[in-house]
Amino acid sequence: MDKTALFNLSYGVYVVTTWAEGRPTGCTANSVMQITATPETIAVSINHDNYTNKCIKDTGVFAINILGENIDPMVIGSFGFRSGKDVDKFEGIEHLVKGYLPVLPQAVSYITCKVINTMETDTHTVFLGEVTDAGNLCKDTPMTYSYYHKVVKGTAPKNAPTYQGD
Amino acid sequence: MDKTALFNLSYGVYVVTTWAEGRPTGCTANSVMQITATPETIAVSINHDNYTNKCIKDTGVFAINILGENIDPMVIGSFGFRSGKDVDKFEGIEHLVKGYLPVLPQAVSYITCKVINTMETDTHTVFLGEVTDAGNLCKDTPMTYSYYHKVVKGTAPKNAPTYQGD
Repeated sequence: MDKTALFNLSYGVYVVTTWAEGRPTGCTANSVMQITATPETIAVSINHDNYTNKCIKDTGVFAINILGENIDPMVIGSFGFRSGKDVDKFEGIEHLVKGYLPVLPQAVSYITCKVINTMETDTHTVFLGEVTDAGNLCKDTPMTYSYYHKVVKGTAPKNAPTYQGD
Repeated sequence: MDKTALFNLSYGVYVVTTWAEGRPTGCTANSVMQITATPETIAVSINHDNYTNKCIKDTGVFAINILGENIDPMVIGSFGFRSGKDVDKFEGIEHLVKGYLPVLPQAVSYITCKVINTMETDTHTVFLGEVTDAGNLCKDTPMTYSYYHKVVKGTAPKNAPTYQGD
């Protein structure tokens, strides 16, 4: 089996946000996709070890923030590679509230969802969310994971479904 | 709600293949993503009306064929916009057998999976598959849905999660 084949799947680059006992929190994600068109539903895969996973289970809601190619790399750095349990990831980062959820004004678009189903795996929860609100914020080209990898020279954190190991 | 926000999610372009009573069949798909890294699992969303959905349920296995930018448009045409129930979509299209599944030799990569879980929605089944085999076939850049839409001028069939309506 040549597992490099899996690197040829295409993804975007997202920050998934929600509330953590009243304060905004979130984490970076790649594994996000639309599941149905009527009604609009979105699935996202989040590692059990991510604090955002627990917070989505607590609140039953999440927002997908779609990052563009010109996003400040500080935003990706802030939301990946560290836990929202230990630090306030929104410290120094402004947020708007859309569809009752914290979203990043620097995002190309936001999609807010309420959880209607989940699927558990050994390491990740797949949250199925029905879209409650959506909108466009910044005019920019949505960043693909391939662009992030090749141009931004970014890597996936260990908790990511797409983590490629050493 | 501005639903155009959902068009900013990033996808690839795939043909999902399986067996239909001994003959190969399949359909085009965009909503494919890796869910976990250990073991490798992949999720795909397939409309209930797609014959491929029934065939995956019958066999418990499927293959993801990752299409490249230089794929013969005839391949996309053959697997989308018509039902494998009525026609043999592989007529005139060669297939290899990898991981006991039919795969397209024109694909950039193939990933074969056995179904380990499903999540039902009103219109689509999300199949969670554990990867059983994977490999690279043609040297090409994986096609993104954005490329398909802008360069190939392709559209999504009505059964697609990403169908944008009229």
